[in-house]
Amino acid sequence: MAIDRLKELRERVVNSLPRGVRVKNIDFEGPVLVIYVENPQELAESGDIVKRLAKDLRKRIIIRPDPKSLKPPEEAKEIILQIVPEDAQITSFFFDEENGEVIIEAEKPGVVIGKQGATLREIMKAVGWSPKVMRTPPIRSKTVENIRQFLLSAKEERKEILRRIGERIHRGTIYEEKWVRVTFLGGSREVGRSCYLLQTPESKILIDCGVNVSNIQHSPYLYVPEVQPLDSIDAVVITHAHLDHCGLVPILYKYGYKGPIYMTPPTRDLMVLLQLDFIEVAAREGTPTPYESSYIREALKHTIPLDYGVVTDISPDVRLTFYNAGHILGSAIAHFHIGEGLYNIAFTGDFKFERTRLFDRAETNFPRLEALIMEATYGGSQDFQPTRREAEEKLISIINETLKNGGKVLIPTFAVGRSQEVMIALEEAIRNKKLEEVTVYLDGMIHEATAIHTAYPEYLNASLRDLIFHHGINPFISESFVKVDSASKRQEVIEEESPSIILATSGMLNGGPVMEYFKRLAGDEKNTLIFVGYQAEGTLGRRIQKGWREVPFPSNGKREVVNVNMRIETVDGFSGHSDRKQLMSYVRALSSKPEKVITVHGDENKCVDLASSIYKTYRVETRAPYNLETVRFI
Amino acid sequence: MAIDRLKELRERVVNSLPRGVRVKNIDFEGPVLVIYVENPQELAESGDIVKRLAKDLRKRIIIRPDPKSLKPPEEAKEIILQIVPEDAQITSFFFDEENGEVIIEAEKPGVVIGKQGATLREIMKAVGWSPKVMRTPPIRSKTVENIRQFLLSAKEERKEILRRIGERIHRGTIYEEKWVRVTFLGGSREVGRSCYLLQTPESKILIDCGVNVSNIQHSPYLYVPEVQPLDSIDAVVITHAHLDHCGLVPILYKYGYKGPIYMTPPTRDLMVLLQLDFIEVAAREGTPTPYESSYIREALKHTIPLDYGVVTDISPDVRLTFYNAGHILGSAIAHFHIGEGLYNIAFTGDFKFERTRLFDRAETNFPRLEALIMEATYGGSQDFQPTRREAEEKLISIINETLKNGGKVLIPTFAVGRSQEVMIALEEAIRNKKLEEVTVYLDGMIHEATAIHTAYPEYLNASLRDLIFHHGINPFISESFVKVDSASKRQEVIEEESPSIILATSGMLNGGPVMEYFKRLAGDEKNTLIFVGYQAEGTLGRRIQKGWREVPFPSNGKREVVNVNMRIETVDGFSGHSDRKQLMSYVRALSSKPEKVITVHGDENKCVDLASSIYKTYRVETRAPYNLETVRFI
Repeated sequence: MAIDRLKELRERVVNSLPRGVRVKNIDFEGPVLVIYVENPQELAESGDIVKRLAKDLRKRIIIRPDPKSLKPPEEAKEIILQIVPEDAQITSFFFDEENGEVIIEAEKPGVVIGKQGATLREIMKAVGWSPKVMRTPPIRSKTVENIRQFLLSAKEERKEILRRIGERIHRGTIYEEKWVRVTFLGGSREVGRSCYLLQTPESKILIDCGVNVSNIQHSPYLYVPEVQPLDSIDAVVITHAHLDHCGLVPILYKYGYKGPIYMTPPTRDLMVLLQLDFIEVAAREGTPTPYESSYIREALKHTIPLDYGVVTDISPDVRLTFYNAGHILGSAIAHFHIGEGLYNIAFTGDFKFERTRLFDRAETNFPRLEALIMEATYGGSQDFQPTRREAEEKLISIINETLKNGGKVLIPTFAVGRSQEVMIALEEAIRNKKLEEVTVYLDGMIHEATAIHTAYPEYLNASLRDLIFHHGINPFISESFVKVDSASKRQEVIEEESPSIILATSGMLNGGPVMEYFKRLAGDEKNTLIFVGYQAEGTLGRRIQKGWREVPFPSNGKREVVNVNMRIETVDGFSGHSDRKQLMSYVRALSSKPEKVITVHGDENKCVDLASSIYKTYRVETRAPYNLETVRFI
Repeated sequence: MAIDRLKELRERVVNSLPRGVRVKNIDFEGPVLVIYVENPQELAESGDIVKRLAKDLRKRIIIRPDPKSLKPPEEAKEIILQIVPEDAQITSFFFDEENGEVIIEAEKPGVVIGKQGATLREIMKAVGWSPKVMRTPPIRSKTVENIRQFLLSAKEERKEILRRIGERIHRGTIYEEKWVRVTFLGGSREVGRSCYLLQTPESKILIDCGVNVSNIQHSPYLYVPEVQPLDSIDAVVITHAHLDHCGLVPILYKYGYKGPIYMTPPTRDLMVLLQLDFIEVAAREGTPTPYESSYIREALKHTIPLDYGVVTDISPDVRLTFYNAGHILGSAIAHFHIGEGLYNIAFTGDFKFERTRLFDRAETNFPRLEALIMEATYGGSQDFQPTRREAEEKLISIINETLKNGGKVLIPTFAVGRSQEVMIALEEAIRNKKLEEVTVYLDGMIHEATAIHTAYPEYLNASLRDLIFHHGINPFISESFVKVDSASKRQEVIEEESPSIILATSGMLNGGPVMEYFKRLAGDEKNTLIFVGYQAEGTLGRRIQKGWREVPFPSNGKREVVNVNMRIETVDGFSGHSDRKQLMSYVRALSSKPEKVITVHGDENKCVDLASSIYKTYRVETRAPYNLETVRFI
C-alpha cells in the first residue's frame, strides 16, 4: 500500500516542481517525505515552492541532494564561510555523507538561515550539501553531545527504522467505522505513572509512559489487552521529560515495541538525562531497575523530535501537533487531529497557565478542539497558589535576611524546571541589586539540566530570548552561578565563611547532594532552608516542614542525630503546575470550547472536584475516570 | 498446573470418602469434577456424602461408575423397571456405554429420582450405571430431539472439548493485582447486539453476543483488542435465547473461539431454534448470512447447560450462577462472584419484575451484589405499562366482541415468549368460560417453541407447574390449540366459516405466515387484528397502528392493494420487559444494595433517564456507558 502511495506521490511531486528539477527518488523517512533531487540548486532558486508542495500534499517534505552533486567537504566549507555573514559565528561543521547533509553549528543560527531561509538556499545551491543549522550552546552539555554522537553512530540503523516507520504511517486506512476512545492506563485519579491510550479503529497512540515515583512497582497497566502486543501501538507521544511522564519509555522497547516516539527536542535530551539518573539512583539504592541503559539508547534510536506547531502524520488517521505547555523546557500539549476533520483531542500533560521567568503560558489557541484531557494536580477547590511575582518577592526577602545575618541559604530543588526558574529569579535580583552580590552554587544535575536549557533558547519565552539575543545577557551563564562537581568542592562550599545560596538536588530531601549540605548546615540558626516545591508524604522534606527538629541519619553504622536549628521556610508559587484558578481560566480561555473535558493527574478528590466545577461553570460534559477505564469520544 | 491441582484434589477426595469406596480416577469435565469409582454402590449408600464433598471442595462433582461394574443393558433395564414405581411412566432408556450413564425418560421424573435422590441411588447400586433422568415431553419437539441426537453423535469430540475446558478453568491464578472491569461492546444506549466483556487480570468473560435486529450489519465491536484474539476469552455466558442476545454466538466459533458457552438448558434449545430460523430467513431474503449452520452446531458442541442456582467455576477467579429473570423460558440473570469474596456483579439481561402466567418475577435475592448491569428498555420516565391482569382483561374483551360478531381474531406474535403468555391466558379464559369454546390456531414457529416449553416445566412458575403436575392440566396441550403446518391447512383456517383465533409469526407483520392471514382477513370488518407486542419503526405493524388503511402488496409482479377494514387494536402489558415502575422497584427490592448500577439495553434517553432516577432515588452511583467504553468496578 505504501508503495502505491509513493508512486502516486512521486507523480504529483514531479508535476508540481519546476521542469528543470530532476527528481531522482522519493521515500518516507518516519513521518517525512524525502525527495532526492539531482540538481537541488534549481529548487533553491524557486523560493518557497517546497513549502507550497508540502501544503498541497499535506505532508512534511525534505529535499536531499544527489550525492554526485556535492562539492568536496573542504571546498564546501570555504564556500559556506564566504556566503554566511561573519557575525553568525560558525563554530563547527559536520559533513554527513550518507544524507548529503552539512551540520553547521553557529552562535547565531538565524544568521546562517537568513531571511526565510534565503542563506540556506544559497548555500545549498553553491555546495550541493543540504545545510542543517544548530546553535552552539553557551554551556557545553554532555547529554546533548552524547546524544548527538550516539545518533550519528546509529545513523544507518536509524535510517532503516525511519523507513519502516514511514511505511507504517502511510499504510492507508481500512475501516469504514469511525470512533475515538481513550483508555486510562495510569495517572488517573492519582499523580504518577501517567499513561493513556488513544484508539481509533485504525490506530493506537500511547501518550506518556511514566513511573509512579512514590512506588516504582506500580507501573501503568501495560499488560491489558488494549495495549498488547506492544508492537500493535503505532506511536508513543511524550508530553514532557519528568519521569512520571516518560520514566518507563525504555521498557516498551524491552517488551517488544519497535515504533517511534515523538517529543520535542529538549524533551528528548532532558528525558535521557533523567532516565539515566533514574536507573543509576535505583542501582545505587539496590532496588531492581525496570530496564537497563541499553533500552534508553534503543528508545533514543526511535525518537522523532518535533518542534511546537509542526503538524505531523503519525498514523493513517492521526496527526500530531505539539504546543507549548509552559511547564518545563520542551513541555508540550499534544494535540491530535483524527480523520479528515473527524475529531480533535488534546492532552495537556502538565501545564502552567501563567507566564513564568522561562516560559510563555500554555497555549490556548487550537485550530479545533472537541475534547481536552487535562491535569488536575491543583484541582481542589482550595488549591490556590501565590502568583510568581509574590513568590519571588518572598524568596528574595528571606534570602536577604539570611545573608544579612551571615548565613547560608539551602534550596532543595528538582534538577529540571524549578531550579532554572529560581536561578533566573536570583540572577535578575542580583543584576537589579535587589539581592547583594552572592555566589549561587549549583549541585547535582542542576548544572547539566541548565546546559540543556541553553541549547534550546527558542523554547524559552520571548523576553528571555530577547534578553539573551538582543541584550547579550544570558542569565544562565551569569558569573554568580558556580557549579559544584566534586565532594571536595562541596566541603569547601560548606566550610567557607561568606554567605551563599546553594541549590541542590533532590527536591524533597530524600537523597542526592542536598543531604550533605543539610547535615552540615542544619545546626546553625543563621542558615535557612527554603522549600520551593511540593514535599510528598513520607519524605524527609515533608517531616521537616511539619516541624521535626531532630533528624536521625545513619553514619558509619551508627545513628547520628542532626539537630535542626536553621530557619525553615516554604515559598509556594514556583510550581510548574497551574493552580486551581489557572486551571479554570485555562478552560475558559480555549479558542474553541471543547465538548468534553477529562481530568487526570491529581489525587482522586482533586480530579473529581475540578471535573465537577468545570461542568457547573461551563456546562461542558466532564469525567474523572479511573485507571483501566475507557471513555469514548465519538 | 491443572495436573498438580488434580493430584491434590484426588488426595482430598480419597480422604473424604468412606474407606470402602475405591476411587479409580478423577478428572475435570468442563467445570465439573468427575470421580470414577469402582464400586459406586458403596457411595450410593452413604446418602449425601457427595454433596458434602462438593461443598468442601467448592466444586461441582459427578460420580461415574467403573465400566466393569455395569450390568448388561437388558438386565439393567428389567431391574430399573422393578425398582421405579410404575406411576413414573418410563417411556425410554438409553445406555451410554462411554460414560456409564443410563438416560431414563419418564413422564414423572421426580418419581424416578425419589426422595432426595434415594431411588436414583438404589438404581445405581443395583445396576452400576449412573442414572440420568429426563422428562418425556408432552409435545414432541423436533429441536429438542435433534439437539439430543446431535450431542450424542458428537459425544467423543465433546468429551475432549470438556476436558480442555476443565483444564483451562483450573489453570490457577497468576496476578497479584486485583481489579474488575467491563467493556461495553454492544447494546449500550441502544437495543440490539447486546455484548459485554467482563475482565479481571486473570479472566475474560463475554456476556451475550447478539445481532442488531434492525441492522444486521451492525455487529458488536468484537474486533477491538480487549476481545481479540477470540480464544483469549475464557467463557461466553448467554442470558436468554432472543437473537439480540445470542444471535451472533456462532460467529465466535467461525473466527477462532474454542471455549465454552454457558446458558440454561431451555436457552440452549430455543437459541438453536431461533438461530437456525435466523439464517434460513436471511438466506430466503437473499441477505448474506453472518455464519453457516455448521457454526450453530459447533457452538452447540461447546455449550454447557447450567440450571438456576448452580454455582459453577468458569475461570480461575470467576464463579457463575444463573437466576430466574422472568423474561422468557430459561432467561437468566447472570451473577458473577469474582475472587474469593472480592466482588459480585450481576447482568440482568432482559428481565420482568412481575409475576406472569409462565414465570415467577425476576430474582432479587443474591448472596452478595456490589454491581448491577440492568436493562432499560422501558427506562423512560413515562414508560408505564398496564398490569398483566389489565392487559388480559382487555384482550379477552376484544376477542369476545369479535367472536360474537362472527369474526376472526388475528394476533401477530413472536414465537418465543409472548405467544405462550397469550396461549395460557386464552386457555384459562376458555377453561373458565370467560371465552367461548373456540379454536386457537398456531402458525409459524409458535408450536415448536411451545413444545420446548413443555420439555422444561421446572422453568415455569409454581402455579403453572402445580396445574400441570398436581391438577393434570397442561394448558399447552389443550385441545383448543391447533397447529397449522401447511399452506393448505392455512387456506382452510382462513376460509372456514366459524370464528377463531389465530396466533401467527412474525410479531411485527414484516414477514412470516401472519402476512397471508392479514391479506385475506383485512378486508372484512367483522375481523380484528390485535397487536400485543412492540411495533418497531419501519414495520408494516407500526404503519397499520398509525392508521394506514390501504396496504400495497406485490402479487405476481403487480401491486395488489389490500384495504384494511378489519378492526385494529393494541393491547399493551404483555411485554416480557419490566416497565419503568418495575425497573425502579427491582433496584429497591434487591436483597443487597449494589454500590454501582449501570443501565444498558434501551434507547439513549431511556438509559440516561433510568440511571439518573436510580441515582436520585437510591443514592447509588450509576452510569449509562456508550458502546466501546470500559467501566472499572474495583
